[in-house]
Amino acid sequence: MRNSRRGEVDPFIVMDVMEAARAAEDAGRHIIHMEVGQPGTPAPEGARTALTRAMQDDAMGYTVALGLPALRRRIAQLYGEWYNVDLDPGRVVVTPGSSGAFLLAFTALFEAGDKVGIGEPGYPSYRQILKALDLVPVGLSASADNRLQPVPADFAGMDLAGLMVASPANPSGTMLDRGAMQALVGACAETDTAFISDEIYHGIEYEAKAVSALEVTDECYVINSFSKYFSMTGWRIGWMVVPEDHVRIIERLAQNMFICPSHASQIAALAAMECSAELEANMVVYRENRRLMLEGLPKAGFDRIAPPDGAFYVYADISHLTTDSRGFAAEILEQAGVAVTPGLDFDPVRGAGTLRFSYARATADIVEGLERLGRFMRERGA
Amino acid sequence: MRNSRRGEVDPFIVMDVMEAARAAEDAGRHIIHMEVGQPGTPAPEGARTALTRAMQDDAMGYTVALGLPALRRRIAQLYGEWYNVDLDPGRVVVTPGSSGAFLLAFTALFEAGDKVGIGEPGYPSYRQILKALDLVPVGLSASADNRLQPVPADFAGMDLAGLMVASPANPSGTMLDRGAMQALVGACAETDTAFISDEIYHGIEYEAKAVSALEVTDECYVINSFSKYFSMTGWRIGWMVVPEDHVRIIERLAQNMFICPSHASQIAALAAMECSAELEANMVVYRENRRLMLEGLPKAGFDRIAPPDGAFYVYADISHLTTDSRGFAAEILEQAGVAVTPGLDFDPVRGAGTLRFSYARATADIVEGLERLGRFMRERGA
Repeated sequence: MRNSRRGEVDPFIVMDVMEAARAAEDAGRHIIHMEVGQPGTPAPEGARTALTRAMQDDAMGYTVALGLPALRRRIAQLYGEWYNVDLDPGRVVVTPGSSGAFLLAFTALFEAGDKVGIGEPGYPSYRQILKALDLVPVGLSASADNRLQPVPADFAGMDLAGLMVASPANPSGTMLDRGAMQALVGACAETDTAFISDEIYHGIEYEAKAVSALEVTDECYVINSFSKYFSMTGWRIGWMVVPEDHVRIIERLAQNMFICPSHASQIAALAAMECSAELEANMVVYRENRRLMLEGLPKAGFDRIAPPDGAFYVYADISHLTTDSRGFAAEILEQAGVAVTPGLDFDPVRGAGTLRFSYARATADIVEGLERLGRFMRERGA
Repeated sequence: MRNSRRGEVDPFIVMDVMEAARAAEDAGRHIIHMEVGQPGTPAPEGARTALTRAMQDDAMGYTVALGLPALRRRIAQLYGEWYNVDLDPGRVVVTPGSSGAFLLAFTALFEAGDKVGIGEPGYPSYRQILKALDLVPVGLSASADNRLQPVPADFAGMDLAGLMVASPANPSGTMLDRGAMQALVGACAETDTAFISDEIYHGIEYEAKAVSALEVTDECYVINSFSKYFSMTGWRIGWMVVPEDHVRIIERLAQNMFICPSHASQIAALAAMECSAELEANMVVYRENRRLMLEGLPKAGFDRIAPPDGAFYVYADISHLTTDSRGFAAEILEQAGVAVTPGLDFDPVRGAGTLRFSYARATADIVEGLERLGRFMRERGA
């Protein structure tokens, strides 16, 4: 049967790692998972309780396409709480995860053939979704001097229709401060380049608060999700904030492309926003895990790391150790029993010399994982 | 801020009807809802119980992109039960509703600019999603002689890259029998036209069983959902069956475009498949509603109706009564307090002379609605 070129997206290399880790576990080995990009914790208890109750009272059919009004209002309120930004709930669009938001944003903003800049290293699905929508992803090789984040000089004269940034970023965990964000927003405004800010890791930050693009401009798309800080990956629920004159466009697209986000997930998400005690307890774990990583990884020999401002990742340059991060990750799994992600998914060019370590799971796993990594590197003679 | 032409999709006319109905209710009027395309019943009790239990035991993070293996197996088993088709679970893809399946199918199969045939009248989102993906929807005006379903002569020589059919169809409720399905599959095979069969209303059928395209060929995409028969619209969970050599393509697209369908909805859907008693009780209601409609609508003066083989719709030709179905529907709402859908969403050409009546809600509503429609038409002097 026929198939399209646009549909031929690249495989995820991390999937091979996860498959190899599962095979090792099936063979009876104990594996520490530093490859996964999701919390080990469930949705907050209050979220689950609210859903259990709603399922008794309500048929839970379709909601309106933009999402439950109460949830849109509560998300708008969050912008007041987190950033002191006064946001009109009418600009909030509830989406089926940040994934759904990417599909809506890219479709509403760009024509087939348009070029969209993405920072590298970066979340691999940006590139693949853009390709599937017949758009042209332009990888901007970000410099370590710029915290692995794009700067205006990286795309000057490129005639980009859009620029997609992420802060804190995956895989690096680095953030754009207000000045860096302003510089990007300003450069984009000059060239009619749509500015899209992926803020999915907001709330998971350590030394300084993450800056939202909405603190700097209303002329942008901001994408966020309940997956990370709110610990609801499997629920596929997120949101997007768009300029006022784009709400109707997005509404019609969402009606047709999704009908609505999961009603159950919307109810759970609304309740999750009142569960600060449990969510802050998760943050205490991430904070301790991060402390252990920043102490243990350099000791083990992974000492060239990006500034770990937020999220739950450490991104390490290992180009002095290998030119084959994929093989190196396989070695670590085989010999140390620790699953880590080679950088190739995030940066096709330089990723052969990088690894991503996730510290989203339990602290005991981090302690054990660091010990194993240290032993592996000592035996390797690094 | 810039926006794209591809993102400028048409509004749904039914949304205006729903808005007008809500305004009337807010003003204190009692409205009978024959405009909505969803069951009034919740997900089966067994589905809700299973989810409540799972939320206590499981973190419910991401699942693999193709869906929980147990759910894929159970869906494959359904093809044995319903059609006596032996289906490899490896060909089943769990999707975020049939909406997610359309996005995956269209992206995997077609290049920008490709022409895809859709029967008219038909589900309006086919056309809008195709346009948003830079594809060219080709409306095939289906003839009443062919039960408002396309036949090979309708697209002969058109060089279509794909053909999308629905049986039972929305808005007409008509079905393709085995011979009609075979003729379409055969014609598509000759011209390398991808055949996509939307089977979302399967299970809601009255006089004869609906035929699955998989009874006729393996070289097709079949799309289905838990929304209708399983009464789970708001859960956004569906599935697709694809040819064996397309599974990897779809898997990679789904990993990037959706990561996975809602884990919670997958758990609820799996349990829903064991709730036949409750689901068959819903069918008893639809069956009685349909009997009342087929008796009451012609009596009221709506006697030119498509063969109501399945789903929960009656599609009526009112071109002898009006050339403005939108105005006619507004009149019915205003004067009779019954919300119905003008045909323009489903058929831009002939829909000015048609109405869709839904009988998905409680029987008491159907009785009351038919009485009001009868009175309206008598007073109108039809």
